[in-house]
Amino acid sequence: MLATMIYGERDIRLDEVPDPKLSTGGDAIVRVVAACVCGSDLWPYRGVVPTEHPRRIGHEFVGIVDSVGREVTKIKVGDFVIAPFYDCDMTCVNCRNGVSTSCLHGGWWGADDRIGGFADGGQGEWVRVPHADGSLVAVPGQPTDEQVPGLLTLADVMGTGHHAALSAGVTSGSTVVVVGDGAVGLCAVIAAKRLGASRIVAMSRHADRQALAREFGATDVVAERGDDGVDAIRELFGGIGADCVLECVGTKESMDQAIRSTRPGGTVGYVGVPNGGSELPIRSLFNRNVGVNGGVAPVRNYVEELLPEVLSGTIRPGLVFDLQLPLAEVAEAYAAMDERRATKVLLRP
Amino acid sequence: MLATMIYGERDIRLDEVPDPKLSTGGDAIVRVVAACVCGSDLWPYRGVVPTEHPRRIGHEFVGIVDSVGREVTKIKVGDFVIAPFYDCDMTCVNCRNGVSTSCLHGGWWGADDRIGGFADGGQGEWVRVPHADGSLVAVPGQPTDEQVPGLLTLADVMGTGHHAALSAGVTSGSTVVVVGDGAVGLCAVIAAKRLGASRIVAMSRHADRQALAREFGATDVVAERGDDGVDAIRELFGGIGADCVLECVGTKESMDQAIRSTRPGGTVGYVGVPNGGSELPIRSLFNRNVGVNGGVAPVRNYVEELLPEVLSGTIRPGLVFDLQLPLAEVAEAYAAMDERRATKVLLRP
Repeated sequence: MLATMIYGERDIRLDEVPDPKLSTGGDAIVRVVAACVCGSDLWPYRGVVPTEHPRRIGHEFVGIVDSVGREVTKIKVGDFVIAPFYDCDMTCVNCRNGVSTSCLHGGWWGADDRIGGFADGGQGEWVRVPHADGSLVAVPGQPTDEQVPGLLTLADVMGTGHHAALSAGVTSGSTVVVVGDGAVGLCAVIAAKRLGASRIVAMSRHADRQALAREFGATDVVAERGDDGVDAIRELFGGIGADCVLECVGTKESMDQAIRSTRPGGTVGYVGVPNGGSELPIRSLFNRNVGVNGGVAPVRNYVEELLPEVLSGTIRPGLVFDLQLPLAEVAEAYAAMDERRATKVLLRP
Repeated sequence: MLATMIYGERDIRLDEVPDPKLSTGGDAIVRVVAACVCGSDLWPYRGVVPTEHPRRIGHEFVGIVDSVGREVTKIKVGDFVIAPFYDCDMTCVNCRNGVSTSCLHGGWWGADDRIGGFADGGQGEWVRVPHADGSLVAVPGQPTDEQVPGLLTLADVMGTGHHAALSAGVTSGSTVVVVGDGAVGLCAVIAAKRLGASRIVAMSRHADRQALAREFGATDVVAERGDDGVDAIRELFGGIGADCVLECVGTKESMDQAIRSTRPGGTVGYVGVPNGGSELPIRSLFNRNVGVNGGVAPVRNYVEELLPEVLSGTIRPGLVFDLQLPLAEVAEAYAAMDERRATKVLLRP
C-alpha cells in the first residue's frame, strides 16, 4: 500500500510499504477514508524536531473497517470509524480515569512497542489499529461526504481544543482567551462557546482565521502579541486578565502570552506540544496563583460527547479544513500548512 | 515598642522600634497576643535568601484591637482579631475572585508601599494594619487561652494547607499525598481530611510528625524520598500514583517528588514558596497530563469557612505548635525551628 514517510526537513514522500496484517486478535484493519496533517507534524517537517532516519508520519484518520481480529466484539466490518491520534484500550485505570493518552497498554501510530506489531499512521491507505474495541468509535450508519471533515476533527483537533477548555476550567460565564489560531485554537473557540463562556477572545493576526473564529463564537479578536497583546487582553478584562486562557501553540512565546493574559487565580489550559525548549516559570505562577493544566489531549474520552453535535451540525469544526487534496499530493499538503497557505489540509487516499 | 529584626544569616534580634501610628483612616492598631515563626522565615534566616540590610521580619499574628481609623466600620476596639499574613481590602476584583493575596491595594507586612505608611510585622508588640475592615476577622467574644494557637493557624498555615488541598482539587473520595511534614503539610492533612479524601499519605521521616499526621487523618505514612518515595507511593495507588498531591515545602526536590507521585490526569496543589531555583518541567507534565495549581495562599478568603471548626475543636490545627516562648526569646524560636527541635513556635509578647 501507499503511506507517507518523512525523510528529513521538508522531505515528505508517499512510499510503497507492506500492507498491514491482523496480528493480536484485538486489532482491526481500517481502510482510510480521510486523513490530515497535524500542526505537530510540522515540527519534524521544519526540522525543529530532527528526523534521524526515514519513518512513517501521520496520526489522524477516519475510515471503514475492513477486517477485525477474533477477540474484537464491538467494532464490526463495514463500520465507519473515528480513531484518536493514538491507540488505547479504554479498560485500564488511566483510560477509566479519563486519560486514555496514558493507556497502560496503548501506543502511538508509527510505533510497534507493546502493541503486537507495527501500527501504521493515518496518512496512508490502510491502518492496523491494535486495540480496535478501545480506540475506535463507530459512527451510526454511514456519514455523508460533507460530514467527513467534521468527524475527522474528532480524531484530534476538536477533542484537543475541548481538552484545552476543560483543563482551563471553562464553565458557564467564564471569560476566555485563546492563544493560537491554528485548527486547534479555532476548535478551542468552539469548545469554550459550547461550555458556556461569556466572552471569548481569539488572538489572531490572519483575517480569514479571525473570521472563522468569530463564526465559531469568538466575541473579540486581538491581533497584538507580546507586551502589547497582554496589555490589550488586560484592558478587555478589568485590568487583570481572563479567567481561562487556552494555549494552543506550544512555543515559549505562546505560553508566556498565555500565562500573562490570565488573571490572578485563573488557569492556563495548554495543549500545544511543548517545543519551545522552555520550562514553566514557577515563581510568576506562584505569585499570581495561576494554574497550568493540560497536556496531550485524551481525545478518545471525548468522542461520545462531541459526536452527536458534529453529526447534527450544532458544532461545525470541519470548517477548519480549508484545503482538500488527494493523498498523492501529501507533500504539497505539508508545504501549504508550513507556508500558512492552509490552516489544515484534508487528504483522501 | 519591641519588634523582631533580621540582621543577616542566623542573626535575629528583638529591637526597640517606633510605636505604630494610625495614618490612613482605614487602618487599625492591634496589640499582638500571639505571633509565630513561619517556615518561609527560615529562608532568610538560613541565608538562602540574602538579607541586604537589617529589616523587620514576621507576618503571622492574632491580637486585640487597640484603636481604629475614622473610616473603619466593621472592626471595633477590643475585638480579638485574626490577621492574614498580608494586608488586603477584600473589596477589589482580585479579593472578590478569591485571591486576596493579589489585592490591588494591599501589601505585605514590613513594607510601606501603597498602604499609607509602614505596616509592622507580627513578631512584635503592636501592628498597624492598613486595611482593617479587609484584613482583620473578629472572633466572636474573647477566645480562651487554649483556643489561641488554633486561631493563630488561620493567619497562615491552616489556610495555606487548605489552599493546597483546594488547588489540587481534593474532593470526596480523592486519594491524596502530602509532601512535607512541617506545619503547612500537617495542616494540609487536616484540610484533605475535611474535604473528604478517602486516603491520605503523609510523607514524613520524623516519628513525632508522623504521629500528628495520623492524628489529623493520615491513613498511611511513607518515609522514603526520591525514587524510593515515588515507588512507594505508586505501589500504594495501583501503580500510577495519587489523584492529588499537596506540595508543602518549596524545594526542587519536593516539587519533583510531588509531580512524580501524581497519577496521569492528577493535580499537584503547591503552596511551598519556591526557593529551589527550578522551573516546572513542562514536558513531563504535558506527557502525563499532570496539572500544577496553587501559589501564595489567599488565607483571608478562608477564615470565615474554617473559623467555626477551629472554635468548636472539630479541627485542631493548633497542635502544630510544639513550643511556646516569650517574644524576648525570639532568637531561640528561630534556632529551634531551624534545627528541627520544634515544628512551629508560638511567641507571646
